[in-house]
Amino acid sequence: MEGFFNVRPVPAAREELFSHWRPEPPAIEEVPLTAAVGRVLAKPVRAQEDVPPYTRSTVDGYAVRAEDTFGATEALPALLDLVEDIRMGAVPQKRLAPGQASRIATGGMLPPGADAVVMVEHTEELDATSFAVLRPVAPGENVIRAGEDVAAGEELLPANSRLRPADIGALAALGITEVPVWRRPRVAVLSTGDEVVPPEQTPAPGQIRDSNSYSLGAAAQEAGGEAVYLGLVRDEYRAVLDGVRRGLEVADVVVLSGGSSVGVRDVAAQVLTDLGPPGVLVHGVALRPGKPVLIALCQGKPVFGLPGHPVSALVTFDLFVRPAIHRLLGLKERPRAGVRARLTRNLASAAGREDHVRVRLVETAEGFAAEPVLGKSGLLSTLVRADGTIVIPPAREGLRAGEEVEVYLF
Amino acid sequence: MEGFFNVRPVPAAREELFSHWRPEPPAIEEVPLTAAVGRVLAKPVRAQEDVPPYTRSTVDGYAVRAEDTFGATEALPALLDLVEDIRMGAVPQKRLAPGQASRIATGGMLPPGADAVVMVEHTEELDATSFAVLRPVAPGENVIRAGEDVAAGEELLPANSRLRPADIGALAALGITEVPVWRRPRVAVLSTGDEVVPPEQTPAPGQIRDSNSYSLGAAAQEAGGEAVYLGLVRDEYRAVLDGVRRGLEVADVVVLSGGSSVGVRDVAAQVLTDLGPPGVLVHGVALRPGKPVLIALCQGKPVFGLPGHPVSALVTFDLFVRPAIHRLLGLKERPRAGVRARLTRNLASAAGREDHVRVRLVETAEGFAAEPVLGKSGLLSTLVRADGTIVIPPAREGLRAGEEVEVYLF
Repeated sequence: MEGFFNVRPVPAAREELFSHWRPEPPAIEEVPLTAAVGRVLAKPVRAQEDVPPYTRSTVDGYAVRAEDTFGATEALPALLDLVEDIRMGAVPQKRLAPGQASRIATGGMLPPGADAVVMVEHTEELDATSFAVLRPVAPGENVIRAGEDVAAGEELLPANSRLRPADIGALAALGITEVPVWRRPRVAVLSTGDEVVPPEQTPAPGQIRDSNSYSLGAAAQEAGGEAVYLGLVRDEYRAVLDGVRRGLEVADVVVLSGGSSVGVRDVAAQVLTDLGPPGVLVHGVALRPGKPVLIALCQGKPVFGLPGHPVSALVTFDLFVRPAIHRLLGLKERPRAGVRARLTRNLASAAGREDHVRVRLVETAEGFAAEPVLGKSGLLSTLVRADGTIVIPPAREGLRAGEEVEVYLF
Repeated sequence: MEGFFNVRPVPAAREELFSHWRPEPPAIEEVPLTAAVGRVLAKPVRAQEDVPPYTRSTVDGYAVRAEDTFGATEALPALLDLVEDIRMGAVPQKRLAPGQASRIATGGMLPPGADAVVMVEHTEELDATSFAVLRPVAPGENVIRAGEDVAAGEELLPANSRLRPADIGALAALGITEVPVWRRPRVAVLSTGDEVVPPEQTPAPGQIRDSNSYSLGAAAQEAGGEAVYLGLVRDEYRAVLDGVRRGLEVADVVVLSGGSSVGVRDVAAQVLTDLGPPGVLVHGVALRPGKPVLIALCQGKPVFGLPGHPVSALVTFDLFVRPAIHRLLGLKERPRAGVRARLTRNLASAAGREDHVRVRLVETAEGFAAEPVLGKSGLLSTLVRADGTIVIPPAREGLRAGEEVEVYLF
């Protein structure tokens, strides 16, 4: 019986691929700004101009020379002459001389001579052409200077940034309406299994519908890739070889799933070895579920032989295929966000093995409880019923009921 | 000066909208399974048949009558007759009589009479037609029973489920290749501001490009909506009225941004009041940044007047507009996942006010540190440079350096 002696820890397995693989970046495509959220920038964006392009007020009030307000109090206000009402979107016409001020609204352009804005709440109108300042302002107060947000020449976003809503706004502010992004990496998905039929077909007795192609294709999309569905291949050397070759032709990454039986796994391992060098890099990982995963590099592209059990397939996708897609996009792995919860029961694990346990989150008076959804890794419904997963690290032999755990949501 | 006395706490502001609003569900559309990930199911999915459709083996080995193996040990194995090699995807031909077994691979169909599978590792082949079992199996061991994953008639997914990769796989297993999902809620986005020009235009002196329409449109897409860009409207009653009316005609939710000056805010408030009843429900929230948000219900649809400062606009979008989009989709708000980090400096806040502070995450030997990105809420670059946000709850007057905080990633 295969033990956990000759299998790799998860990080070492990933590193084995990453140290051998020199990914070829995907092509660059230009997308409209309105379709760029979530995409990954292919080139750094440098500001060609200042944002904002002029020094503007952040409040409603009066543009002033700050020194004219120094020492002002309610008892002894500074009296200033109003020389202009600055129109929004227009250039102020009057330069401020000492003792002068202009009325300005939020977003308005400061007139020459002004270096601060007094909020209207800290003033008192005296007549049509003069007002009193009740509190001093410092130079630069209540303004955003030209280029204070982004200065001309500054790198706003490095290449390989995943574009978030704020980044999209910043690109708009710079006038960038077509954005160079990496083409989504293509992920070819194939399933093996002589008992497996496509989902649109009614299975005959002894047959079952393909679900892995669709769950893995969806996972590839969620990871920022484009799924290329190559369908089913028979469990024999020639068919698997042809299928993986087709995948290598059309895609950047190939994911083969199925083959939970030893015979089928051996066929896949043989194909991936023959398509090297280097071929198979990892055969088995200290992981549950997902131990029998195959990781290979064929013709410069990563090829994953994921276990056929649907839960194992998705767990290994997350641990190995998703990072490979991110690497093609030049994305740094982000820290993983989780929900804190108390475990509801003891969970056993084996030292040296990383366990991924599906859980449901239940709201309690003391916060969230994480309730393990137990069941075989062949049961997709255990994932459907779960909200997320917890990880038992290799150094632990289990977790205790009541322990605080981090739940990673699906 | 407007205080925090007449403003609502964030949850109360949201509740004010939700208690008045009877959302009309979006239309239903059918999408192919390969385009359904992330979409929201419009109808419950009930299994029409058992998954798996037959009792199958989860290991490579021998299908047996479990009772024939009871008491088997290495010293005293049970001897069984091999009657068939079950082909994958085929129906077994032989019913097992006592003392008989059939060879079966992972995924194979159990023959009549069998109720368990012995792993090949726990057997010893004797000759072509007989083998020894070295360990007993219990009935049901190493098999997935017909319907054990999903039983015919069972509700697999309730309506309003956001479809995750595993759910997509489960739909495939049931033969569902066209999925009824809610049309993405349409979110009309308008910006006001007489100084604002579209991003493709070069701003004249005193003008600035529209960034909020694009950051908010992107946020609407990320929240599961479809952004409808209605462009710029002038800061005057008639223009804002026409703009919001257009939004109400074409969209399910209207988001107006800009109007940080009091005059402009007053115009927006007047328009939303006139488009009621009930019109404006919330005018000001105990929140920083984002205090001057307007929440209204006009002609049965939510209309949000978000502050013009770009950071405030995105913070209020997340707190009010995103939940409204989710409500249209029938989605339950999920628990929020965060990254634990230590705050690097003291942060002051006011009791009674909810503060959202942008932070960068820095990896340290002791885990992550959260480093506040300070800067005016008019500076979009503070968001671009941040990894996420931390929340200072209303009950706190600040956070201390070294405190553990939860960082919500952008």
